[in-house]
Amino acid sequence: MTDQHIASAFDRDLEEIQAHLMKMGGMVEDAIREGAKSLKRRDEELADTVRKNDKKIDALDLQIQEECARVLALRQPIASDLRTVLTVMKVAANLERIGDYAKNMAKRTTVLVHMPPIDGASGAIKRMAGEAQSMLTDALDAYIRRDADLAHDVRQRDLEIDQMYNALFREFLTFMMEDPRNISSCMHLHFIAKNIERMGDHVTSIADQVIYLVTGEMPDEARPKGNAPNYEIPSSSETGAKG
Amino acid sequence: MTDQHIASAFDRDLEEIQAHLMKMGGMVEDAIREGAKSLKRRDEELADTVRKNDKKIDALDLQIQEECARVLALRQPIASDLRTVLTVMKVAANLERIGDYAKNMAKRTTVLVHMPPIDGASGAIKRMAGEAQSMLTDALDAYIRRDADLAHDVRQRDLEIDQMYNALFREFLTFMMEDPRNISSCMHLHFIAKNIERMGDHVTSIADQVIYLVTGEMPDEARPKGNAPNYEIPSSSETGAKG
Repeated sequence: MTDQHIASAFDRDLEEIQAHLMKMGGMVEDAIREGAKSLKRRDEELADTVRKNDKKIDALDLQIQEECARVLALRQPIASDLRTVLTVMKVAANLERIGDYAKNMAKRTTVLVHMPPIDGASGAIKRMAGEAQSMLTDALDAYIRRDADLAHDVRQRDLEIDQMYNALFREFLTFMMEDPRNISSCMHLHFIAKNIERMGDHVTSIADQVIYLVTGEMPDEARPKGNAPNYEIPSSSETGAKG
Repeated sequence: MTDQHIASAFDRDLEEIQAHLMKMGGMVEDAIREGAKSLKRRDEELADTVRKNDKKIDALDLQIQEECARVLALRQPIASDLRTVLTVMKVAANLERIGDYAKNMAKRTTVLVHMPPIDGASGAIKRMAGEAQSMLTDALDAYIRRDADLAHDVRQRDLEIDQMYNALFREFLTFMMEDPRNISSCMHLHFIAKNIERMGDHVTSIADQVIYLVTGEMPDEARPKGNAPNYEIPSSSETGAKG
């Protein structure tokens, strides 16, 4: 938009809204990173900050939804302009949801710091969260650059998150089997892992929106799916296997 | 809309879209009911049907989103008409998500039928799902009748779902502590319970939209929240307590 010499009123409005969307994206990226960091460091204060910041993310979502509604009413965009505004609304809704999952991670952290730590779990979760955050960065980049290839790439990477989740799921089961005192903390950790996996789904949904915006068509299939998680309790011989 | 003698083109379009929205709502209600029934009866075939039907729900969501975009482009509604179209888009998105959770319940059912049953769990989940489904019925009713009071009532009832979830969470923990062979199935059952709790959140979000549509303002606070779940492992003396 910025390289157009004569910008229409619609373009100016859109640019402002998109700036808010990118600001929101940055806040959500921070929430993922800080949420995982608070878990890793058992830092209740940081977890508290993440929880508080989610209110700001929600407020920004509401603001963006209202700005979009206003643009629809005032500028009455059609064709690709209309599609762009609707995409912004959907991307903001996805970001809001990802922010919720990050808040939830922080919420469970404040509980987990009072429980005995589970070997290696918070590090594995931090890596998983790191991957989700980097996917989000790229998905927002793909949106701004209208880069369908990058969006396709993001979709593919969701497989990795799914695989990381499946590996963790098996590990938590093993820990719980080994010692019932691990059950409570493993349930929380499992939920955190599941929520990061869901973040991946929402990032994928943003990537889908970008592809739709650029090509006019949704990606061929529903997003690629990794192997279904192995729902059986691992036998002791498999305990060391990562998935 | 139907009691207007001279309906505008916009009104006719909206009526058609709303009919699709209600059809989608009915399909999602069915998915919740049948998903819970498949779990209760350990009926893999029914679970399979629920999973397949979710594709139809997703397709209807896509259709509604497109119809709304088309109405925005063609009729360029403003003020309350615009707000209505945007509400329909959001309600459809919420329905799609609730459908996903019902599909997930069916997916886990196909795994759970091959595990030893947990006493009373599927019955409790069926009751919880029944409450979520009845809330949804009322939320959609509130939408069609533009009834903010009914919508407020729906919001309040989400507390009950939260309480049912908290009680189940404690029960599952107890089962897992008692016998590690219960861990795997309790993890699945716990996820199902959590997903129903999330259905409640999405129904609440539909109710919020209705209130916004009728009054022009979002409900005062974020939705009411029950007591935070008790994250501690219940001591044996509390085992019988329901939360």
